[in-house]
Amino acid sequence: MIVLGIDPGTASTGYGVVQGDAAGLVALIECGVIRTRARDPLPARLLEIYEGVSELIERHRPDALSVEDVFYAKNVRTTVVLGHARGVVLLAGQQAHLDIHEIPPAEIKKAVVGTGAATKEQVQFMLTRLLRLKSVPQPSDAADGVAAALACLMAARLPSARDLRPRTRRIGR
Amino acid sequence: MIVLGIDPGTASTGYGVVQGDAAGLVALIECGVIRTRARDPLPARLLEIYEGVSELIERHRPDALSVEDVFYAKNVRTTVVLGHARGVVLLAGQQAHLDIHEIPPAEIKKAVVGTGAATKEQVQFMLTRLLRLKSVPQPSDAADGVAAALACLMAARLPSARDLRPRTRRIGR
Repeated sequence: MIVLGIDPGTASTGYGVVQGDAAGLVALIECGVIRTRARDPLPARLLEIYEGVSELIERHRPDALSVEDVFYAKNVRTTVVLGHARGVVLLAGQQAHLDIHEIPPAEIKKAVVGTGAATKEQVQFMLTRLLRLKSVPQPSDAADGVAAALACLMAARLPSARDLRPRTRRIGR
Repeated sequence: MIVLGIDPGTASTGYGVVQGDAAGLVALIECGVIRTRARDPLPARLLEIYEGVSELIERHRPDALSVEDVFYAKNVRTTVVLGHARGVVLLAGQQAHLDIHEIPPAEIKKAVVGTGAATKEQVQFMLTRLLRLKSVPQPSDAADGVAAALACLMAARLPSARDLRPRTRRIGR
């Protein structure tokens, strides 16, 4: 199973392509960032992000798209502009008929480190360990994209709480 | 000059296609709404909005796209989701190489009615007069799309403040 993880942003959209096998082994295929020029108007930047994500989907043919859920920045304007970038990322995934997961930052941390209160450094440390990398993916937006992909894979491997819940067996009536 | 005006929304995206000639006469070509199903996930709804806007561009070949700027709803979540819809609308316009205008609600009112504090009813009344319609475009999201298109046309017709400012002529040194 191949997952494309995205950390959307208008200036820099981080991405990570991670593969997982049935035994639970994960491997990093590619990571990086899609950068846009600050002097370009928003529609031109959105087109670059859309084309960048579409190209990654075309090239890696992932099974799923995992996108970090909205981070509510203190500045509402920032959060809204981020919504524009997320919109074109989700569109690219939908057009490719991918299984789309929107994962809140705390759940990404929980899936990768084991606690939603983990620091950025702890997430990066675990990424490096789990993927057997020599160093932390750079820049940090790329590491965030990798974390989103990894969280999706880890969540898929774990049985959900519903599966674990013991069922009451009814005997007779 | 043909302008496609859009009032973005995840549930209902209003649109209006308005034509203006050199003499300042304006005419409504088409208006309506792109509706999405509330039970569909966000990526599927974004794809419907994107395809709807792209189809309008393909069919009417407008010169410009006029999009109502972000309305900061009291609910931040609503505003952010609206950002997603605006993102795919701007993307469709950019892909078609349209001249894109993002106009704040108060400027749309000012261009159509003459004051940024105009009520929705005043805007609808002026729309109906200017476009010589028998009734107000329905539903109101469609009227908002028409207003965005009209505001873009009216703004293009008026000389800007910069053009009107008398230039100081320098005589000698």
